[in-house]
Amino acid sequence: MNAPVITFLSDYGLEDDFVGVCHGVIAMICPAARVIDLTHGIARHYVRAGALILGEALPYLPAGVHLAVVDPDVGAERRPVALRLADGRTATFHGRDIFAPVAARLAGGALVAEAGDPIDPADLVTLALSRPTHEDGALVAHVRYIDRFGNVQLDADHEDLAGSGLKLGRLAELELGSHATYRLQYARTFADVAADELLLYEDAQRRLSVAVSHGDAAAALGLAVDDELRIRPA
Amino acid sequence: MNAPVITFLSDYGLEDDFVGVCHGVIAMICPAARVIDLTHGIARHYVRAGALILGEALPYLPAGVHLAVVDPDVGAERRPVALRLADGRTATFHGRDIFAPVAARLAGGALVAEAGDPIDPADLVTLALSRPTHEDGALVAHVRYIDRFGNVQLDADHEDLAGSGLKLGRLAELELGSHATYRLQYARTFADVAADELLLYEDAQRRLSVAVSHGDAAAALGLAVDDELRIRPA
Amino acid sequence: MNAPVITFLSDYGLEDDFVGVCHGVIAMICPAARVIDLTHGIARHYVRAGALILGEALPYLPAGVHLAVVDPDVGAERRPVALRLADGRTATFHGRDIFAPVAARLAGGALVAEAGDPIDPADLVTLALSRPTHEDGALVAHVRYIDRFGNVQLDADHEDLAGSGLKLGRLAELELGSHATYRLQYARTFADVAADELLLYEDAQRRLSVAVSHGDAAAALGLAVDDELRIRPA
Repeated sequence: MNAPVITFLSDYGLEDDFVGVCHGVIAMICPAARVIDLTHGIARHYVRAGALILGEALPYLPAGVHLAVVDPDVGAERRPVALRLADGRTATFHGRDIFAPVAARLAGGALVAEAGDPIDPADLVTLALSRPTHEDGALVAHVRYIDRFGNVQLDADHEDLAGSGLKLGRLAELELGSHATYRLQYARTFADVAADELLLYEDAQRRLSVAVSHGDAAAALGLAVDDELRIRPA
Repeated sequence: MNAPVITFLSDYGLEDDFVGVCHGVIAMICPAARVIDLTHGIARHYVRAGALILGEALPYLPAGVHLAVVDPDVGAERRPVALRLADGRTATFHGRDIFAPVAARLAGGALVAEAGDPIDPADLVTLALSRPTHEDGALVAHVRYIDRFGNVQLDADHEDLAGSGLKLGRLAELELGSHATYRLQYARTFADVAADELLLYEDAQRRLSVAVSHGDAAAALGLAVDDELRIRPA
Repeated sequence: MNAPVITFLSDYGLEDDFVGVCHGVIAMICPAARVIDLTHGIARHYVRAGALILGEALPYLPAGVHLAVVDPDVGAERRPVALRLADGRTATFHGRDIFAPVAARLAGGALVAEAGDPIDPADLVTLALSRPTHEDGALVAHVRYIDRFGNVQLDADHEDLAGSGLKLGRLAELELGSHATYRLQYARTFADVAADELLLYEDAQRRLSVAVSHGDAAAALGLAVDDELRIRPA
């Protein structure tokens, strides 16, 4: 027998713990229930958006309990309503109509071969990713990814610095474009430098990264993905 | 026996994959565990907010493991601590105190009748939703919903254009208010127009929508919910 | 036997119901599947970021189906691809490498004692939290927490107003710093005041809070955490 399903839509947002606490309450009362967060991004008090989204989504949700909370006025007199409903279906949202169904069938034991016609891997579009190079004793690296904290991950790793003379704990020189130059510590971890200081370190994916302790390195240095940086001992 | 519960609070945010990767690690080590995300919206390094939120939420969380990670300093010397705890309870957060409990009881098999006194559907507040009309050979539609990409869903569908003379693949004229007029293709999909071009198309909910390929139509056209638009063949 | 796992990465964001609807579809087709949201914060159409994040995350995800949707162009001609893969591993992301694994082991039945060496609670760093005081007939409280709606929670509760002469339903005077003074109702709930009006009320955690009905009190009053407020009958 399948677990009972509760879908959950609200205007609570995910910044606070409103949604998490409701999940907790549900898990205590009905531990077997599976909760599907439909969305918690409804604009505050925007009952109409909640109603439209819930109405359109229902045909794509399992039979179950649909919990929807968008208060016209917090704590105001309004009736909590429980309804019993019937069913619907539509086109072009590939995530919903193609990808998620195939993923679910595979998870249910279907063979990959059943997902479609076999294709030659050589036919797939490949991503051109930059590679670090060496020039005039400097490591020439490129910005590979910037996370939400503004930490700047490069396409180079520890080994790419071998032979450059730069050692952990020493100062490095970072050159952006042809003019701007920064000095920063080649450190093991954020804690090795003071707040607001730049550092060069190996991140959790073993890539060289540039960061500002307690700050946003991408913003501070004006860096974007694919930008080129030159690193050498200071 | 109920699945073991892990609640998870952090300052990781949801933009990156930090939270998802931790879920993955947990699922590999303890596949039976159910993870409840309490919140990942704690401001970066803001230990105090994490502590306050966790402390207030605990009475509403099932007994289990409460994983909380808000680093005062990433990678700094600080002790990971495992604690064993005891219990508490409070008022006015209806999601937590009324809606989630009722949803959980229904999911657990309670009858809808047990959720409260029966009410006459005619007593419910109804949403007044706009309807498209026709005027001087134009379809007069209204903005129904704007998603986070700025795609503008109208209250009209394909059929409402029947008789207007507008055909798929042809140019339409879009009139906003009394002055601004735009030309845009009545297309099947985004890929039918170049980047930054406007299009009129049928969306995944079978509603006519206005979008900008790779752009934000609501911002580009200055449209808000309920705004009126006139559509006719160009 | 463990539940089949589907990890899910996309550029859908969490503001709309795109992700929730895909969860619904999966739950209908394969109710036993457990879905792990890797992230839905990939920048729109940013295939490269999706590929990099998925590639780095794979070693930390259970064997299963990895659903990844980042469209180069919505609805454009591009092939949905299903792949069968093999395996990897890295350092310094404590959430992934220390905290999540310990939480999972505890959830799986490990004893707290196995999580590390016992420590004396007196050795733990404690948070210094403010306490309300009384001065010249006023309650001197401090901002304890501000939620995403701008509701300002104080470090005081109902009882701290006992003896001040302020009664529910009456006007209070709120003094910020030495000059700015506001009048606001000491109300039971938001619905007791008109939109855009200030109120003082007891929140869901039984703390006194300052809010603006349908508005953002922290922004309106320029309040930040730890700020001091004086409350007395008006």
